[in-house]
Amino acid sequence: DSNMKIFSLNSDPALSQKICDILGIELGKNSVTRFSDGEIQINIEESIRGCDVYIIQSISNPVNEHLMELLIMVDALKRASANTINLVIPYYGYARQDRKARAREPITAKLVANLLQTAGSTRVIALDLHAPQIQGFFDIPIDHLLGVPILADYFESKNLQDIVIVSPDHGGVTRTRKLADRLKAPIAIIDKRRPKPNVVEVMNIVGNIEGKTAILIDDIIDTAGTITLAANALIENGAKEVYACCTHPVLSGPAIERIQNSKIKELIITDSVTLPEENRIDKIVELSVAPLISEAIKRVHRKESVDELVQ
Amino acid sequence: DSNMKIFSLNSDPALSQKICDILGIELGKNSVTRFSDGEIQINIEESIRGCDVYIIQSISNPVNEHLMELLIMVDALKRASANTINLVIPYYGYARQDRKARAREPITAKLVANLLQTAGSTRVIALDLHAPQIQGFFDIPIDHLLGVPILADYFESKNLQDIVIVSPDHGGVTRTRKLADRLKAPIAIIDKRRPKPNVVEVMNIVGNIEGKTAILIDDIIDTAGTITLAANALIENGAKEVYACCTHPVLSGPAIERIQNSKIKELIITDSVTLPEENRIDKIVELSVAPLISEAIKRVHRKESVDELVQ
Ligand SMILES: Nc1ncnc2c1ncn2[C@@H]1O[C@H](COP(=O)(O)O)[C@@H](O)[C@H]1O
Ligand SMILES: Nc1ncnc2c1ncn2[C@@H]1O[C@H](COP(=O)(O)O)[C@@H](O)[C@H]1O
Repeated sequence: DSNMKIFSLNSDPALSQKICDILGIELGKNSVTRFSDGEIQINIEESIRGCDVYIIQSISNPVNEHLMELLIMVDALKRASANTINLVIPYYGYARQDRKARAREPITAKLVANLLQTAGSTRVIALDLHAPQIQGFFDIPIDHLLGVPILADYFESKNLQDIVIVSPDHGGVTRTRKLADRLKAPIAIIDKRRPKPNVVEVMNIVGNIEGKTAILIDDIIDTAGTITLAANALIENGAKEVYACCTHPVLSGPAIERIQNSKIKELIITDSVTLPEENRIDKIVELSVAPLISEAIKRVHRKESVDELVQ
Repeated sequence: DSNMKIFSLNSDPALSQKICDILGIELGKNSVTRFSDGEIQINIEESIRGCDVYIIQSISNPVNEHLMELLIMVDALKRASANTINLVIPYYGYARQDRKARAREPITAKLVANLLQTAGSTRVIALDLHAPQIQGFFDIPIDHLLGVPILADYFESKNLQDIVIVSPDHGGVTRTRKLADRLKAPIAIIDKRRPKPNVVEVMNIVGNIEGKTAILIDDIIDTAGTITLAANALIENGAKEVYACCTHPVLSGPAIERIQNSKIKELIITDSVTLPEENRIDKIVELSVAPLISEAIKRVHRKESVDELVQ
């Protein structure tokens, strides 16, 4: 379809190329560089007048750079008379600032939604938002893709026996239930509790994990504190082995070292956040969201239902 | 006035403190830090409910970080029920991307204005915008302060004889005329011209500079290519000595080295952009915009006219 153009900015060039390969179209020609003073300079090197444009960009680290690149690109496309401007956001950053947990906190996830709309976006395709409520922060159509089936397919292909799917905290039980349904497995929950203030947390495991292969699941693994402590607690409490998986491998600060030194046997991630070369350790298995995203782009562009891809 | 609160983010802490000292009020308590993954975390540590809040923040290098800090702070203040949210922006970054000079270019200066308004700003106080037209990018009140009087006062106090005020290019002649009026001096213009494509530029000087003390003026000095070439051309063409001045010392890339190695005797700048310690070379004289900005804040807050401070 000559009316469809896909552009990549700086967050996920490899993923963008994979998506274009699957769709059988060429990546749009553009450059995203910096002026000497750090200001973003974007050049769009082909006409997009009247086109339906898809921009693939995660709001990943360096988060403010990636977000501003996206906003400026949308501004340029709008002024260049694009027909529609569709944001494909594999990882939506600032999603953990999604409510006022304390007085005078910003709700940056909502601010980001407003900024994207102000710039001129007409639609969003997102993947595993930290809170599904963030869909409601937008007043333009948003399709919310699910990463769980990709992770489930991988575990299915491994044919593991006697498994239990484990949520590393209370917040992730719904996600854990979804993976468990797909893998026809029971669930367990790591139930952290601080008996008194200034006393170390107790890790209580709700559910039967003894002798089982445990699969920890989270949406984001950032500093990897939660997931590695959970893995070690599972082993201490009699699990046979521990796999961990997530959609968004933010993996900042001590994350890689913690994973390396933990009892996690294998960590399964996706390419929604580009993993730097130096972080590609043996324990980590990367799955691609390119088939899912290219299917979503194709259906959105053809105005077909995306029901099976979304929640 | 207990209803006025001034907050500083990360771009200009020293300038903000000076402004508060002049106004005789304490700087508002807040912190602006980063989560492990680079996301901005803002804490406002005192109630601002019903207050008129002034945020002092330049959109200076690292420009995307400083802009996002400002947007998130505005979001937090809005949700915390500030009465008014006044942005004091000594240096408005992205101002050179203020028009479509080529096909499919963004107009980032307008995007930034839209983002600031979307976040919830109610007023802007800016200083020497690269193009005064940027005032029209806002639909909220904007006061546009002038830096020329600060530079003029300095040169007056030096009591230089037989001076000529020089514009380093065609774009800056109006600004040059303003300084010349204040110093009762004639003007000259560096008239760059490329005789043929791929032939080196010719620097022609329009106006009489021979034997005179030349004062070059620009709004922004960024990589310092223009200003140092102009200074050297003035000396080669018979100027006695060359001063240079600007409001916004962006000074990126090779700027400091170029200034050091140039024929510029003294470079006069302001603290609208914070100069890093390592860039404080002997040739550079820094003037403060704190008196001007604090006067503007005082008058805006009292709903008095700022006519003499603006253009
Ligand atoms: N980038 C971030 N890194 C770490 N913590 C964050 C980040 N953004 C927000 N938070 C905190 O994470 C908590 C929300 O996480 P959750 O309860 O998992 O939704 C809040 O306490 C936030 O202050
Ligand atoms: N941050 C920047 N650094 C250098 N050049 C820029 C920057 N932003 C915009 N420009 C370019 O500067 C020119 C506008 O400058 P001016 O003619 O002085 O208004 C345009 O050609 C822009 O592409």
